[in-house]
Amino acid sequence: MAKNLMLAVAQVGGIDSSESKPEVVARLIALLEEAASQGAELVVFPELTLTTFFPRTWFEEGDFEGYFEKSMPNDDVRPLFERAKDLGVGFYLGYAELTSDQKRYNTSILVNKHGDIVGKYRKMHLPGHADNREGLPNQHLEKKYFLEGDLGFGVFDFHGVQVGMCLCNDRRWPEVYRSLSLQGAELVVLGYNTPDFVPGWQEEPHAKMFTHLLSLQAGAYQNSVFVAAAGKSGFEDGHHMIGGSAVVAPSGEILAKAAGEGDEVVVVKADIDMGRPYKESVFDFAAHRRPDAYGIIAERKGRGAPLPVAFNVND
Amino acid sequence: MAKNLMLAVAQVGGIDSSESKPEVVARLIALLEEAASQGAELVVFPELTLTTFFPRTWFEEGDFEGYFEKSMPNDDVRPLFERAKDLGVGFYLGYAELTSDQKRYNTSILVNKHGDIVGKYRKMHLPGHADNREGLPNQHLEKKYFLEGDLGFGVFDFHGVQVGMCLCNDRRWPEVYRSLSLQGAELVVLGYNTPDFVPGWQEEPHAKMFTHLLSLQAGAYQNSVFVAAAGKSGFEDGHHMIGGSAVVAPSGEILAKAAGEGDEVVVVKADIDMGRPYKESVFDFAAHRRPDAYGIIAERKGRGAPLPVAFNVND
Repeated sequence: MAKNLMLAVAQVGGIDSSESKPEVVARLIALLEEAASQGAELVVFPELTLTTFFPRTWFEEGDFEGYFEKSMPNDDVRPLFERAKDLGVGFYLGYAELTSDQKRYNTSILVNKHGDIVGKYRKMHLPGHADNREGLPNQHLEKKYFLEGDLGFGVFDFHGVQVGMCLCNDRRWPEVYRSLSLQGAELVVLGYNTPDFVPGWQEEPHAKMFTHLLSLQAGAYQNSVFVAAAGKSGFEDGHHMIGGSAVVAPSGEILAKAAGEGDEVVVVKADIDMGRPYKESVFDFAAHRRPDAYGIIAERKGRGAPLPVAFNVND
Repeated sequence: MAKNLMLAVAQVGGIDSSESKPEVVARLIALLEEAASQGAELVVFPELTLTTFFPRTWFEEGDFEGYFEKSMPNDDVRPLFERAKDLGVGFYLGYAELTSDQKRYNTSILVNKHGDIVGKYRKMHLPGHADNREGLPNQHLEKKYFLEGDLGFGVFDFHGVQVGMCLCNDRRWPEVYRSLSLQGAELVVLGYNTPDFVPGWQEEPHAKMFTHLLSLQAGAYQNSVFVAAAGKSGFEDGHHMIGGSAVVAPSGEILAKAAGEGDEVVVVKADIDMGRPYKESVFDFAAHRRPDAYGIIAERKGRGAPLPVAFNVND
């Protein structure tokens, strides 16, 4: 019997600073309901879904607490949990987390169809910088506001489908998909906020969409998994972020993609077993991988000198 | 001062079994001369360049020695070395290697502008199978004819440019580019033979070209390196292989690609420093990578059970 999952990505258009969390949650519920009406079983929301992408702005200590969630679900977010449970739909949600011991993380959770939080992830690859660069059109202060994730790359059961999570910049790092795939992931879900301008990142504007999709497609193909990515997109407080929320198949091909940059739902029937023939042939890891030669990946952090290679031309 | 390298990929059309090695080498010299006339400094030839892609056929022991080279350069290949040295052009060449102690590898070498072999690579990711599957249109017997490479992923200096090598199926494995990039590679060169049909590999025919290019592009982008790939392409003994020899920039974008499936040279002026802004921002490995969490990549070979993740919803 085919193992199908009705999979939705819920792109969320820009959220201005003036918008309250209950207003945002009402938008998320509308997207959830639209997805459910198309049969969705799992809805992927973006990264830092509940507010504007505040890491673009320098705030002094004490001025940014409002962007963080001290518990989940809390009163603002509970209506989303309750509506999803009523509809029997699970979801992935990214938000800014403040722990009881005052640690801050860029976090996502996986909620099953019964409303239970069955998985949690804290962003491992924080982009940007921690220092104030006031002269720039916008900053990218994730290294100021968040600690690096401390939960590793987890794979969680979602009603029989093995799901891995990551967040935004993580999707550009092949180690992420590989670590999840080695644990049996069949689907990788992620949220993102990708501004047109990132300090120091010399990329042509058109390449933002290209490298976003390239990263999703390579991760899906090279690991024989589905990838579902939802962005917070369009204009926020005058700053523009790319759209392109998408579902990619284990073939690496895009199955569906948001057409615009606003609130938009895309639903795909994902035949989870589609990854199997890849896993049993070209990407049969047990047959083909060479972990004996991959040590440098886990041992070295930055670029360094070449390792010596002892070879004779004819030996 | 810009660090430019005039970089050529020399695609080689099909080589029938009836063609002798001196005939093949004459074709390679013609490609080399054409590349040199366009200013090329480094010419990338395919995998197993000197013969038909013999791993598609089952041969009994003793019947396949003729496909292997016992020394390099040998009498058949020396004219290529000599012409390249005369022209002051370096090259990458893939061939089947038989060592003095009777070991067989799928090998490539890097030859500098003075005709010296300055780097050697033995294919680490051997695709296919070792058993006889006679009923198939063609087989894929690399695991029969070759030992897995034992030289690791080496980076070699080519007149000031740091060059990593790989071969064919290696290009689909992100560990390859990453291992090379962590050693300072600026350019990854590779040859390939990609048949339309591979046993057990359930890929749509159109996807062969797509996943070939996807793998090159992702490897280039995620590691801020140039990638230059040359295929043996078109029909060989009635079997078809894809073309698509290409040069990809550190942006992930294709700079040039062969138009056909026959003997064809593509030359690109590669601004090697183009990778630098990526290496200093989004892909600043020293700032952003998390080797503390990548252990599974080097510790686990095949897919396995999820690692436990200890999380509290609110902690």
